[in-house]
Amino acid sequence: MKHFTNNKEDIVTDAIDGTIAASGGTLTRLDGYPHIRVVVRSDWDKSKVALVTGGGSGHEPAHVGFVGQGMLTAAVCGDVFASPSVDAVLAGILAVTGPAGCLLIVKNYTGDRLNFGLAAERARAFGLKVSMVIVDDDVALPDLPQARGLAGTLFVHKIAGAMAENGANLEACTLAAERVIKASRSIGMSLDTCIVPGSLKEDRIPPGMAELGLGIHGEAGVEQVASKGAKDAMAQVVERLAATMPKTPHVALVNNLGGSSVLEMSVLTNDLFATAIGDNIKLLIGPDAMMTALDMHGFSVSVMELSDGDDALLKHPVAVPGWPGCTTVQTPNTVPLPDGLSPIRAPASPHASTKTFITECCKVLIAAEDDLNLLDAKSGDGDTGSTLATAARALIEAMDSLPLADHTQLYRAIGLELSQTMGGSSGVLLAIFFAAAGDASSSGLPMRESLIAGLDRMRQIGGANPGDRTMIDALAPALEGLKGGLRPAADAARKGAKYTATLTQAKAGRATYINADQLEGHVDPGAEAVALLFEHLAGT
Amino acid sequence: MKHFTNNKEDIVTDAIDGTIAASGGTLTRLDGYPHIRVVVRSDWDKSKVALVTGGGSGHEPAHVGFVGQGMLTAAVCGDVFASPSVDAVLAGILAVTGPAGCLLIVKNYTGDRLNFGLAAERARAFGLKVSMVIVDDDVALPDLPQARGLAGTLFVHKIAGAMAENGANLEACTLAAERVIKASRSIGMSLDTCIVPGSLKEDRIPPGMAELGLGIHGEAGVEQVASKGAKDAMAQVVERLAATMPKTPHVALVNNLGGSSVLEMSVLTNDLFATAIGDNIKLLIGPDAMMTALDMHGFSVSVMELSDGDDALLKHPVAVPGWPGCTTVQTPNTVPLPDGLSPIRAPASPHASTKTFITECCKVLIAAEDDLNLLDAKSGDGDTGSTLATAARALIEAMDSLPLADHTQLYRAIGLELSQTMGGSSGVLLAIFFAAAGDASSSGLPMRESLIAGLDRMRQIGGANPGDRTMIDALAPALEGLKGGLRPAADAARKGAKYTATLTQAKAGRATYINADQLEGHVDPGAEAVALLFEHLAGT
Repeated sequence: MKHFTNNKEDIVTDAIDGTIAASGGTLTRLDGYPHIRVVVRSDWDKSKVALVTGGGSGHEPAHVGFVGQGMLTAAVCGDVFASPSVDAVLAGILAVTGPAGCLLIVKNYTGDRLNFGLAAERARAFGLKVSMVIVDDDVALPDLPQARGLAGTLFVHKIAGAMAENGANLEACTLAAERVIKASRSIGMSLDTCIVPGSLKEDRIPPGMAELGLGIHGEAGVEQVASKGAKDAMAQVVERLAATMPKTPHVALVNNLGGSSVLEMSVLTNDLFATAIGDNIKLLIGPDAMMTALDMHGFSVSVMELSDGDDALLKHPVAVPGWPGCTTVQTPNTVPLPDGLSPIRAPASPHASTKTFITECCKVLIAAEDDLNLLDAKSGDGDTGSTLATAARALIEAMDSLPLADHTQLYRAIGLELSQTMGGSSGVLLAIFFAAAGDASSSGLPMRESLIAGLDRMRQIGGANPGDRTMIDALAPALEGLKGGLRPAADAARKGAKYTATLTQAKAGRATYINADQLEGHVDPGAEAVALLFEHLAGT
Repeated sequence: MKHFTNNKEDIVTDAIDGTIAASGGTLTRLDGYPHIRVVVRSDWDKSKVALVTGGGSGHEPAHVGFVGQGMLTAAVCGDVFASPSVDAVLAGILAVTGPAGCLLIVKNYTGDRLNFGLAAERARAFGLKVSMVIVDDDVALPDLPQARGLAGTLFVHKIAGAMAENGANLEACTLAAERVIKASRSIGMSLDTCIVPGSLKEDRIPPGMAELGLGIHGEAGVEQVASKGAKDAMAQVVERLAATMPKTPHVALVNNLGGSSVLEMSVLTNDLFATAIGDNIKLLIGPDAMMTALDMHGFSVSVMELSDGDDALLKHPVAVPGWPGCTTVQTPNTVPLPDGLSPIRAPASPHASTKTFITECCKVLIAAEDDLNLLDAKSGDGDTGSTLATAARALIEAMDSLPLADHTQLYRAIGLELSQTMGGSSGVLLAIFFAAAGDASSSGLPMRESLIAGLDRMRQIGGANPGDRTMIDALAPALEGLKGGLRPAADAARKGAKYTATLTQAKAGRATYINADQLEGHVDPGAEAVALLFEHLAGT
């Protein structure tokens, strides 16, 4: 199957049940499955004006995701892209309408108009006060007498919803809804058509093209245009909106039609503010998936001219799963970069014996370059010797700039030097080893304990443990052995290095990808380097 | 272009700027573009433990979308699917860390571990308290010593974030983070690979197959399995989770990997509760896109064993754009269907002259069947005559069950009859006409005014106006003319019907799709029917 759905006939009820299950008890439904699929607020007591909406499914989170305190009272769900029946709409109205009456919010599609319209008549025959508004925010076809209802419908839900929650009467809610509809404009663009689960994909849009002014049911766009990226897409959409938009403060709603990535939606939002209408946008809703066309790889922008009080109504708190909130657009500012990005370098200080010691160590590694490379060729990519030798040469080169007389600072300086001259993960890991040893030393620990602290940090960051066939198999026992002096340390390092030749499953580093036969009998080159160092220091 | 993005090298900064622009001022960034991309809380005063995270981009809303009060203090963004530099991480730490210290939350990828690890060492060299936790919640590869970090990272952000916001110290936050990591498990499934903007798609998954246990960077899944729909997908995912899950209360996080529709995510959530672990899920986060792999058509489920206090921490309010909230799972219940779905039928009452009147009207329409069909064939689909005649025959058939003596109820009864026997939009529209006329009549209006009220409602719902080439072009003037009696009404209806023959652009109904040449000179069949009726009544 191409979709995460089950039986085609259960798609809508499955999705409704999932949304109810995720609502934490705020949503419930009428007991009318399979034909009557009406989701209602669990806490509804009919004390205020009810807001009922709905239409075909496939636009999730619309409309069920907007049912709850502060927005819709009930949503009536049809099949995917098909209007619900008159009976289903009537059930929704009858279930939630009290003395304050009910406002039906209907997107401008013939099926929805007729079925909601007739259901309204039936409800009125019961003496219920029912008014109905028809949302026609699409500007894709300016000459069409019957503009479609798109994501601008959300403005109606939100503003009328907040008013109803605040206790406004049916007439006030209806007038506000009509005012919002007149003030709303929407248009969308898509790079691909949507796929109705269980149906074949209509491959209508050629590669490199996009559709401008599309519907939310897979209807073809008004025109196909070249797809030239986010800026151009947003510019084309905005051009259509701007054609009839007054230059007054607006709220914008940036809607993911279902299949655009969150990354793309953020890029598009950024581009929106750089367009001709950017300065008119005072409030923003989204970007988010609010009125989708299943998995359509597209977006829409809806704008609404703001009137007094809309700010508070749009920001009025809601308890619904689908509403992303409304923010006031602010001029972005930045914070200056912090001090300290240029590493602190302790002042150079000469110290003859330290210089000799470090230089000797470096020379050991330089001398071992070829041997270590050979060893690495058995279990990795053959560059351990060169990596260590390069770093050793660079350290000798930098020797006179190091704080040789201040051992605490010296650890950190070596760490810094290695992080800059030694490539790969091992460079970072050794930098961490020395930096952490420097930390420990600065807190007063003696040398061996400081090095063990460095080893612990390196293990934490690198994730390698003893037995994983890394330099740690030599370094850990060496530092342990150092309690007894350099000789036991060197012996322990050598023993640890030899042990790595028996390990046929590397658990860290590049040798992880090498099979057992190739590893068996070969010492890990990092462990060998450690053993060589300690053996040299012990005077072997 | 296949994506709504611009220059490849600007993708991450474009997306960050878009997210900041949409944040309403809660987010800001360090002035370090293009290399240092760090987003921070605008309101941060360093008075509490700072939480810093990040990693490669392409996982939006992670991590920028979780920066803000109650969650993250800063997010450090690398290129798409690439770790940020040590300098960028260090800049993030230095920018937000005060005396309370900083917790680094790092997903378990080598690049992130090393770069965050070294940055932490550098920050410590400034005397800052920095601790670091590594998230490894992936259970796809149970034998891998280095499990990956997936959406379970969000549990860490949320719980440590709430604790930090509540004033917990660094040690407590770190311990909690480590506890959460140990208690978390994640695994995902996808029907398709993701596409990195500007790169070619890797067509790795054959049709009909899905990948189980995939990474969030397009890494191949542990295995390819047959794609058998949502239930099966969820069952496979849950089987892997359940393998090591204790049978204790858990929170589940249902994550859209980026390209699944909202509909599918709801279906999957519904299926989750029907699995073996359904009863263990006490809290739910999502479904929503939280840790994406660009536009991957997949989902992941993360679970975490709950400890005392987690409920409050997971529900602790946050001011971040990406967090969908956490709900307590409740047993869903339903509301009984309302009374009144079976239409109210007024009791039958005989009334001879009314019966004759209606029967005559019906006979006019039955007699005109063929002519009206012919007329409709010129401008529509040729069935207007049959549609009206069928309804007329049914009405005659039902005559003796109608409340003929109660005219108010009679309107409604005719409307109900037409809605059940007359197909198409016209059946619904005439049903609305009669129902609304009945409403008006019941409120005391005389016949003509009641019919006008019905017409108004029909126009509102149907959206047709005079001049749109519909039956309204005859009906509206006829009702107007009725002021003077049936003769002027009939004349006005005929004049209106003739007028439709001059209208070459239908604006409602099926004739909208017919071109001008075909329409010119032909009377609209609906208008003709109205004229015929009134002419008959006037005795023409």
